[in-house]
Amino acid sequence: MKVAFLGERGSFSELAACEFFGDDIEPDPQKDFADIALRVQKGKAAYGIVPIENSRSGSIHQNYDMLLEHEVYVCGEIYLYISHYLLACPGVSRQRITTVYSHPQIFLQCRKYFNRYTDLQQQPVSNSAKAVRKVMLEKRTDAAAIASMQAAIDYNMTILAKNIEDNHHNMTRFIIIQGKKQKKMPEGKDVRNSIVFSTRNIPGALFKCLSVFSLRDINLLKIESRPYGSKGFNYLFYLDFEGSMKNASHKNALRHLQEITSFYRFLGSYPKGRKVRPVYKKRVS
Amino acid sequence: MKVAFLGERGSFSELAACEFFGDDIEPDPQKDFADIALRVQKGKAAYGIVPIENSRSGSIHQNYDMLLEHEVYVCGEIYLYISHYLLACPGVSRQRITTVYSHPQIFLQCRKYFNRYTDLQQQPVSNSAKAVRKVMLEKRTDAAAIASMQAAIDYNMTILAKNIEDNHHNMTRFIIIQGKKQKKMPEGKDVRNSIVFSTRNIPGALFKCLSVFSLRDINLLKIESRPYGSKGFNYLFYLDFEGSMKNASHKNALRHLQEITSFYRFLGSYPKGRKVRPVYKKRVS
Repeated sequence: MKVAFLGERGSFSELAACEFFGDDIEPDPQKDFADIALRVQKGKAAYGIVPIENSRSGSIHQNYDMLLEHEVYVCGEIYLYISHYLLACPGVSRQRITTVYSHPQIFLQCRKYFNRYTDLQQQPVSNSAKAVRKVMLEKRTDAAAIASMQAAIDYNMTILAKNIEDNHHNMTRFIIIQGKKQKKMPEGKDVRNSIVFSTRNIPGALFKCLSVFSLRDINLLKIESRPYGSKGFNYLFYLDFEGSMKNASHKNALRHLQEITSFYRFLGSYPKGRKVRPVYKKRVS
Repeated sequence: MKVAFLGERGSFSELAACEFFGDDIEPDPQKDFADIALRVQKGKAAYGIVPIENSRSGSIHQNYDMLLEHEVYVCGEIYLYISHYLLACPGVSRQRITTVYSHPQIFLQCRKYFNRYTDLQQQPVSNSAKAVRKVMLEKRTDAAAIASMQAAIDYNMTILAKNIEDNHHNMTRFIIIQGKKQKKMPEGKDVRNSIVFSTRNIPGALFKCLSVFSLRDINLLKIESRPYGSKGFNYLFYLDFEGSMKNASHKNALRHLQEITSFYRFLGSYPKGRKVRPVYKKRVS
């Protein structure tokens, strides 16, 4: 089963894919979300997996936008504990490092480390596995990369510092996407649903939209506003709520919502995700 | 009057500061928000100005976090139309460019341009003025920078392409901060207020919080959720609402809100900002 993910081998997205689907997936690494969405839409990959939110640095907004711009549906989620490692070429010591390569989101998750070591210059690159390969291929003795423990194993790098994230409960939420609308809605209490809508320009519009859930005792899990459109600051709202779409109250809530929104789309219904610490492994490339 | 801002001379933040305060400010360029906040808190700068939200790429989340982590108050806002220019060293032609330096947020605002010219490699740096200086100082013939028209004038660069932003209504909202709580609240209809709070863990908590405004016909302008705390996904809400805090109904709404929140802070009350197109000028450095 082919699973498209962001980044390269050893990336957090690949770790998340293995935890969700198991180790025998066929990895289909992609450069950006648009490529993942196209792979999934065209049926070239069965599923795609993308990071959508981190417990420290917040939502990954461009991925929310992409969700809207493509015909894809959310069919699952998983929460991965994220630990960051400072990696260098074998034999290089911490004292010689002046430059650190990684993804900007990762720097945001390691602010305290950089506040302590002010001699380190941050150099952003597009993903953490790329950072490791850059340091390795250029045989740098003055530079290190921040990446996962899996990247240290895959690229045989020296670990200069471990768990340098600010918060050891640092977690990233990944969503799993597919190209077709689900036919069978998941049942039970531990179900999560994602929708996106925009309100009409009337007083108390957002309040009315949220009331369709609250008046039915449907628990809201997350709300996220995003600017959209060409005329400056208009907002779209991404909303996650709890419970099976098989319930009459849930169906009615969404019917009610559509009476008072100017735009609405159902993004998917899926079982609540597990929280996992990734298991690292030696593997044959 | 000293005004601290993010980035260097020619940055969008400096343009916004000149539009808000006039050209005779004493510029106090800083490396990050924490430095601006400290300058303002210690009275070393009268005001600070920071980008908080873009109409295309959304909120600049780390700046929201910093607002909470420092003792600063919002006392104004301004919306700046943002146009991006592709700049190179004099005599360099577009055909020779393979690498483009700029801030990651700027790349997000120019996605269509990069989709059209897939031969261009994006190289993120911490601000756009730095990108221009890098290309200029290294006398690069294979690289360009994306920055403002003002940077083209200040650094005497050739313009290879203009207005390459996806959306010509591209606007950034800047907030002005000061170190002391306001004594006099602004009056009239065109007043905007910013608060931050977290809800108690009870059903319908966010709905109840929003109801304190809606039941009083107070217009909500923006809501933004941010994860916080050490135990994974708990949310803080940043909320902007309309109207003077001299109104009894507004005072009551905030009293009411504090009954049902577990954390609350008033960030500031300020006149609604103007939308301006920056005026570029030749200046003596």
